Amino acid sequence: MNPTQALTEQLIACHSVTPVDGGCQDLMLSRLLPLGFVVEKLHSNGVDNFWARRGTDGPVLCFAGHTDVVPTGPLHDWTTDPFVPTVQEGMLHGRGAADMKASLAAFVTAIERFVAECPDHKGSIALLITSDEEGVATDGTVKVVDLLQARGESIDYCIVGEPTSDRRFGDTIKNGRRGSLSGNLTVKGIQGHIAYPHLARNPIHQLAPALAELAGMEWDRGNDYFPPTSWQVSNIHGGAGATNIIPGSVNVQFNFRFSTEQTADGLKQRVHAVLDQHGLEYDLQWNLSGNPFFTAPGELSRALQAAIETETGVQAQLSTTGGTSDGRFIARICKQVVEFGPINATIHKVNECVAVDDLPRLSGIYYQTLCRLLG
Amino acid sequence: MNPTQALTEQLIACHSVTPVDGGCQDLMLSRLLPLGFVVEKLHSNGVDNFWARRGTDGPVLCFAGHTDVVPTGPLHDWTTDPFVPTVQEGMLHGRGAADMKASLAAFVTAIERFVAECPDHKGSIALLITSDEEGVATDGTVKVVDLLQARGESIDYCIVGEPTSDRRFGDTIKNGRRGSLSGNLTVKGIQGHIAYPHLARNPIHQLAPALAELAGMEWDRGNDYFPPTSWQVSNIHGGAGATNIIPGSVNVQFNFRFSTEQTADGLKQRVHAVLDQHGLEYDLQWNLSGNPFFTAPGELSRALQAAIETETGVQAQLSTTGGTSDGRFIARICKQVVEFGPINATIHKVNECVAVDDLPRLSGIYYQTLCRLLG
Ligand SMILES: [Zn+2]
Ligand SMILES: [Zn+2]
Repeated sequence: MNPTQALTEQLIACHSVTPVDGGCQDLMLSRLLPLGFVVEKLHSNGVDNFWARRGTDGPVLCFAGHTDVVPTGPLHDWTTDPFVPTVQEGMLHGRGAADMKASLAAFVTAIERFVAECPDHKGSIALLITSDEEGVATDGTVKVVDLLQARGESIDYCIVGEPTSDRRFGDTIKNGRRGSLSGNLTVKGIQGHIAYPHLARNPIHQLAPALAELAGMEWDRGNDYFPPTSWQVSNIHGGAGATNIIPGSVNVQFNFRFSTEQTADGLKQRVHAVLDQHGLEYDLQWNLSGNPFFTAPGELSRALQAAIETETGVQAQLSTTGGTSDGRFIARICKQVVEFGPINATIHKVNECVAVDDLPRLSGIYYQTLCRLLG
Repeated sequence: MNPTQALTEQLIACHSVTPVDGGCQDLMLSRLLPLGFVVEKLHSNGVDNFWARRGTDGPVLCFAGHTDVVPTGPLHDWTTDPFVPTVQEGMLHGRGAADMKASLAAFVTAIERFVAECPDHKGSIALLITSDEEGVATDGTVKVVDLLQARGESIDYCIVGEPTSDRRFGDTIKNGRRGSLSGNLTVKGIQGHIAYPHLARNPIHQLAPALAELAGMEWDRGNDYFPPTSWQVSNIHGGAGATNIIPGSVNVQFNFRFSTEQTADGLKQRVHAVLDQHGLEYDLQWNLSGNPFFTAPGELSRALQAAIETETGVQAQLSTTGGTSDGRFIARICKQVVEFGPINATIHKVNECVAVDDLPRLSGIYYQTLCRLLG
């Protein structure tokens, strides 16, 4: 069996539903320690993280990822046991197969091969691994980055192993992600009987023109790398069911996915301006899930694209679409952060799987990137 | 004890939570039958109604009302048992005391006195009594009116005994009521992930400008007798709680309270025009609770005003405010419908009560109105 497949299967067999690591990190470390990595474990509120580095010089090429997986959902919906790695028709099945235990295994086997061939490589190889990416992500990568930043340590190149391939393995590299900013808005009115509207103040009526203005707003036109900033309402609730009562308040939950054309503070100011201009009495709680990050095409993305083309013949496109990732934290101490991994069609779903043939190719891509940047 | 107070207490002691009559109507009929009333009982789907008439000539003066009461709510919130009539500090307490068992008792005692003094009165005295006014009102007054209309019987003057007095006993007669038209609107979009808005269509965003337009609309300016037509949203709900999902639909419940300047069909057309103009994909269910009715100042209101002034010294104002009443049904066969009864401050609340001193005065007002119109 191919060594990347073998290690992926060992990792799948570890029960690591977020934020539990389930032994994955010790398994990885048992392979890295013999290679001369210096390892720092960082436990934070039940979350396991480690930072491992081989070498003391720059440049630092870091592989980043998470050992935790999302819950399985109902087991009877799966055709195989999600924690028993099973190959069926060329696909390796199991929770986390694609997101992202295949990438973790490929990191390790690529490094093993590179170190064996090139024990005196340039710079440093590093790994930043967490078990808190699929959950609240408050005690994972962000804590390791805090530590590195506090002691002035930075990263030159970072490859996050998220499953970025879309239709064909190798077709997509993420070179940035939009920011995500959420708001929880409560507009207050005065409750009353619907037959006596002059004694009430209908918060839904007061909200409506402001909501129309926000929904119709052009926040920006995006740029060469990002689509336009998007504002979307996910929930609106006013009234407790009675059809003869004007409710006393209405609640709206909304979310921005924003490009590098915006800052969170700038967006907040624009929303408050609209609400204030419409004379609303309101309460608005903000939650910044992540600022946008962006890596301009450069050494790292070119090395990765060349490695992908050599291994697969595919020309990888750079993209910034999709949700947030831990890349948003790493970007604080690293100018070049990209994400690359297997096809994401089955992630977070039942019967998650990865193509067996893509496992050695993924390892090969990470290996060749190491060769190009540190060889 | 004053006979109106005595009968009110007997009626309060009947458990008649809507649509149950609880023996109230038999109690009334035991007093009316000896006076020579011809009685027709009409049972419809568990609801008790009666139509009673003394005389065969016109004009017909009808007293209309309901024996049912709204539920008590939590008994521990009451200071007395709601079905045990109790006098405290000049107030007679009990569920239905003001809405509208005092009026029912006053109808009976006024008629007894009038018939005793004027056995050969002009025209006819009638009573239209139901036990389905506080509920859905589908098997009550409307069914009796259907029956009378089917046989070509009409009413000349109708006094509905609803508690119309506001701050002082005698201050308000209702000479009309606004119509009530409700809508249940579902705007359809396309559900999707908030990170991929181009694959979804947010129904809340699509609704917002139409909602703003409807909320800002001047439907009419009212007229001498009615306030402007009012449109109010009572409920808006979209989204099942997830903050990363654009919901597939949003539901809005709204209600018109409309003047005689409007028709239900006209209002429906204007709402559909706004929704269509905004290109919404929607489903809209209408429910017409009642058309508006209006009685121009005339013989009946003048007789009632004179009776009120004689009994209380108060100049009664004519008003069309408030919710709907059974007057909307009676107006189909009666050109002059007004409503008059005790102070409404405690109706539908805990510790409902009526002033003991107002009971003989209420009977006196109905009596004097009988004298003026049929004496
Ligand atoms: Zn992942
Ligand atoms: Zn009533």
